[in-house]
Amino acid sequence: MKVNGIPYRPIWEADGAVRIIDQTRLPFAFTEAPLRSEAEAVRAIADMLVRGAPLIGATAAYGLALAMREDASDENLAAAHDRLFRARPTAVNLRWAIDDVAARIRPLAPGDRAEAAWLRARAIADEDVELCRMIGVHGLPLIEAVAARKGRVNVLTHCNAGWLATCDWGTATSPIYQAHDKGIDVHVWVDETRPRNQGAFLTAWELGQHGVPHTVIVDNAGGHLMQHGQVDLCFVGTDRTTRAGDVCNKIGTYLKALAAKDNNVPFYVCLPSPTIDWTVRDGVAEIPIEERRGEEVTEVQGLGPRGVESFRVVAPGSPAANPAFDVTPARLVSGLVTERGVAEASEAGLLGLFPEAAAA
Amino acid sequence: MKVNGIPYRPIWEADGAVRIIDQTRLPFAFTEAPLRSEAEAVRAIADMLVRGAPLIGATAAYGLALAMREDASDENLAAAHDRLFRARPTAVNLRWAIDDVAARIRPLAPGDRAEAAWLRARAIADEDVELCRMIGVHGLPLIEAVAARKGRVNVLTHCNAGWLATCDWGTATSPIYQAHDKGIDVHVWVDETRPRNQGAFLTAWELGQHGVPHTVIVDNAGGHLMQHGQVDLCFVGTDRTTRAGDVCNKIGTYLKALAAKDNNVPFYVCLPSPTIDWTVRDGVAEIPIEERRGEEVTEVQGLGPRGVESFRVVAPGSPAANPAFDVTPARLVSGLVTERGVAEASEAGLLGLFPEAAAA
Repeated sequence: MKVNGIPYRPIWEADGAVRIIDQTRLPFAFTEAPLRSEAEAVRAIADMLVRGAPLIGATAAYGLALAMREDASDENLAAAHDRLFRARPTAVNLRWAIDDVAARIRPLAPGDRAEAAWLRARAIADEDVELCRMIGVHGLPLIEAVAARKGRVNVLTHCNAGWLATCDWGTATSPIYQAHDKGIDVHVWVDETRPRNQGAFLTAWELGQHGVPHTVIVDNAGGHLMQHGQVDLCFVGTDRTTRAGDVCNKIGTYLKALAAKDNNVPFYVCLPSPTIDWTVRDGVAEIPIEERRGEEVTEVQGLGPRGVESFRVVAPGSPAANPAFDVTPARLVSGLVTERGVAEASEAGLLGLFPEAAAA
Repeated sequence: MKVNGIPYRPIWEADGAVRIIDQTRLPFAFTEAPLRSEAEAVRAIADMLVRGAPLIGATAAYGLALAMREDASDENLAAAHDRLFRARPTAVNLRWAIDDVAARIRPLAPGDRAEAAWLRARAIADEDVELCRMIGVHGLPLIEAVAARKGRVNVLTHCNAGWLATCDWGTATSPIYQAHDKGIDVHVWVDETRPRNQGAFLTAWELGQHGVPHTVIVDNAGGHLMQHGQVDLCFVGTDRTTRAGDVCNKIGTYLKALAAKDNNVPFYVCLPSPTIDWTVRDGVAEIPIEERRGEEVTEVQGLGPRGVESFRVVAPGSPAANPAFDVTPARLVSGLVTERGVAEASEAGLLGLFPEAAAA
């Protein structure tokens, strides 16, 4: 997608090295950062210069390739795999990506490993771009149908399931970008997404840079907008979808799904199929929800008179709780938009598109 | 309620004048301010040193009394009424209070007006305290019933319907304070309440000062907590309740009511009967919602390294929308807690407690 009119990906190759956008500095500064070594890749992941499961996976894969350039021995392959894994130990996609690269290069002679790892990292990134593009291809008709009926289409989204979180296009944003690029008049309500403000910081930034009309709202506002016919569709991403179609996503998603149901607004979840967890059925009962530091609630980062600073926004002495995700039951989800098409949010719906998972 | 262990009201008489808490400086500084003249009362209302409908009403009533001390002529009575009204023209309670005081003192000789106005202002404040206390008396059994069943009671509240917004006790907080003062183990989940953070700033502060256990959460979190049995009751306030029991309150209330319904969590709205608007039936269709400045969303006040400052928390260039209230349909409300008892959220329920309104 575009930044200042120039097409970008959040990770790309340049002069034989890798470059990323330093997402910790968004939206107040747009800064590129080079990844010239495994150590820089580890730091980019651990310090969250890159975030979003697919992007973390691709970054880690390139990190392993960079490690092989430095020392392609069996020992360093194992050690680098371990260092990259520990950079963000809960990131399932990271683990998958480095396992995949390592399994492919371990049988090779050390002299061939760096090149093979590099090509595999590139393929992992390109495969993610294609997954995301296809999510958009299948989600686009949902927007086109509204546009045909009433012209302007108002989409509400939560958090950042945008191109910054993937290797391009994003998931929830992919249908939106494709609609916009086709000339459809699509406008996005961007949930601020407290406590980390990924909507107000990242989604608003990337939509703005690409030229997509959008308006930031507090997380409290979506229900009211839906009551008054100001939302035609909801598109959100997900970290994990169960076999039964329950959706684990950023905290607050469930509240928007309830409001959508109450107002007959279609609520779609956009996901690449690797995020389906076929081993889990009941998301509310089975998925443990990460409780993060209360400081993420009590302290907010913002642009003040002297640059970007952190400041307290809760009464001194009052504690805060910070559950990071919630689960939206399948009964509230109108459809799951995947790279293979739109499935009903149910086991039957998902198996219809992914029959190979029936035995899983 | 208590501040630093000392009982306070948000407005009180001292040495023949009036004092208030400067709420614009909360929660980062606790400052009293004197109201020695009508002009200071006008400024306190206009600059929101006092906020909350009942407190604004009482402040305006005292303001009119202060005006009569300065000049008790018919001309100044009319002019002061006008100045106080224009300090916050949309505040229905302010208008009611100054109309009430003016109607009582206009027939009097100028020399008697200041004293009569003062006594009436005091009565208005005391009547509000009694209304709020009675809301707590009727809400308390709802908490006691849960406590009898399971010990600790977890209450969720939104925005600030606390003693700071009234003349004491608050509305939604009145049952909570009474339960706490009786020794019941009550813990409050305090919604941050973006965009103006009245929960994180004011509700957290007042609960903390009075010693009520509480935890601040982002507005996104309540649904998840309810899904997991961590909320026993919701208590919220309201700006306006319709004849049919629809409830207009701070933006985001509707989302919490939806989540409560979905999880069988009782959702109570606490209100003094003067806030019932008997002329309106369908809240969603009939109540116009104030759209406030987008800057309230994009700029946040917080305590930074150099004191309290304003910070931007939205991507530069991205616009924001800011609907200030929403309407929770009566079907989502378990009961309306009034000074006369708990009514079903319906016309029949309200008329059962307020039969005198049947003809309205």
